[in-house]
Amino acid sequence: MTLEVIWGSGSPYAWRVLLTLEVKGLSYESRLIQFSRGDHRSPEHLALNPRGKVPVLRDGNYVLSESLAIMAYLDRKHPEPAIFGGSAEETGLIWKAISEFQSYVLPLADRIVVPAFGGRPLDAVDMQAAAGELHGELGRMEQAVTGRGWLAVEQLSAADLAVYPFVEGLLRAGKEAVRPMGLGFLPLAERYPTLEDWRQRIAALPGYARTYPPHWREAA
Amino acid sequence: MTLEVIWGSGSPYAWRVLLTLEVKGLSYESRLIQFSRGDHRSPEHLALNPRGKVPVLRDGNYVLSESLAIMAYLDRKHPEPAIFGGSAEETGLIWKAISEFQSYVLPLADRIVVPAFGGRPLDAVDMQAAAGELHGELGRMEQAVTGRGWLAVEQLSAADLAVYPFVEGLLRAGKEAVRPMGLGFLPLAERYPTLEDWRQRIAALPGYARTYPPHWREAA
Repeated sequence: MTLEVIWGSGSPYAWRVLLTLEVKGLSYESRLIQFSRGDHRSPEHLALNPRGKVPVLRDGNYVLSESLAIMAYLDRKHPEPAIFGGSAEETGLIWKAISEFQSYVLPLADRIVVPAFGGRPLDAVDMQAAAGELHGELGRMEQAVTGRGWLAVEQLSAADLAVYPFVEGLLRAGKEAVRPMGLGFLPLAERYPTLEDWRQRIAALPGYARTYPPHWREAA
Repeated sequence: MTLEVIWGSGSPYAWRVLLTLEVKGLSYESRLIQFSRGDHRSPEHLALNPRGKVPVLRDGNYVLSESLAIMAYLDRKHPEPAIFGGSAEETGLIWKAISEFQSYVLPLADRIVVPAFGGRPLDAVDMQAAAGELHGELGRMEQAVTGRGWLAVEQLSAADLAVYPFVEGLLRAGKEAVRPMGLGFLPLAERYPTLEDWRQRIAALPGYARTYPPHWREAA
């Protein structure tokens, strides 16, 4: 049975799934669709996910959307290496880190990344307010990684894979139109050296290059 | 080892965990704190969860916050009955339903419930806009429940337990200050008869009465 993943370049949600597939050492068919061409609004894609989002995973006749759901599915179907922990205690801590990211960090990051990438008008006042709170969250993450090297438990977990693409998006946003705002995210190593090491560790994972957003590489 | 759950009356997040404990048939100590007295901001509570949120679970020395993380922890530690599915395919569908609720439904519900319960000024225009979109989501949920009786798979799952408290909150909000706005949620059975049946099935679960927000009962 072939695993097929439908994704879009630069979607942090899709990136989570690609990283999971690589960490699990699974072979998969990669189908990159183009948002700019409206592929995610095509009848073919809407038949797989009526919300028109990526990623979508196909595993034979089984179709699944929502990045965290796909990660949970892949981990249960292919348990090694475990990304949701080796014990109930670890499972709890990993989902806690993911839940906190989704509820408290992601909404702040979106207030910067979405306008920086052209999804909304730039609003310097709101972006600076979000950046202030986001530094608080990055400080918590820096502390969490300190000592053990990973966000939630003593080894790489779904929490790292779920958070990482958004950190990359934020750093990339900092290079674009928002640079003059001085939001203080670049260079990451200056203020968050442990988080920068964590980032380098993820970028060194086998297969990482296959997950890197192709249009970022072209633009680099 | 005693399980202890720290919760607040009417918190839908805490309610998820209480329902999970009852469905699992676990005995637990219930510690109800009072938001109105600022208990969640006490040094004792902040030591357990620096974000000052409920629920918090204590299991011996292990402390865990974030409702979905607690549900995942309890399910792994006490696997029967399984609430995250009996197969990878079910696990995927359950987390998909939860993720969709968190990302697409909850932000809409908050735009109605938070002002209705006094957390923000009432804004009829925004609340009516949110209600319009929310009806679309409730329609999807009505369809999902039709036939199999539960939201994500053929049996009661974490998706039902995660979504249910928010539906109750929405219905209660509809009885309060927002009634004149005619948002169209009450009575639920009129527009969403299958969802109403689903709601009744959850309310009939053994131990349900212990999970019901005490200050709602007093006010009824």
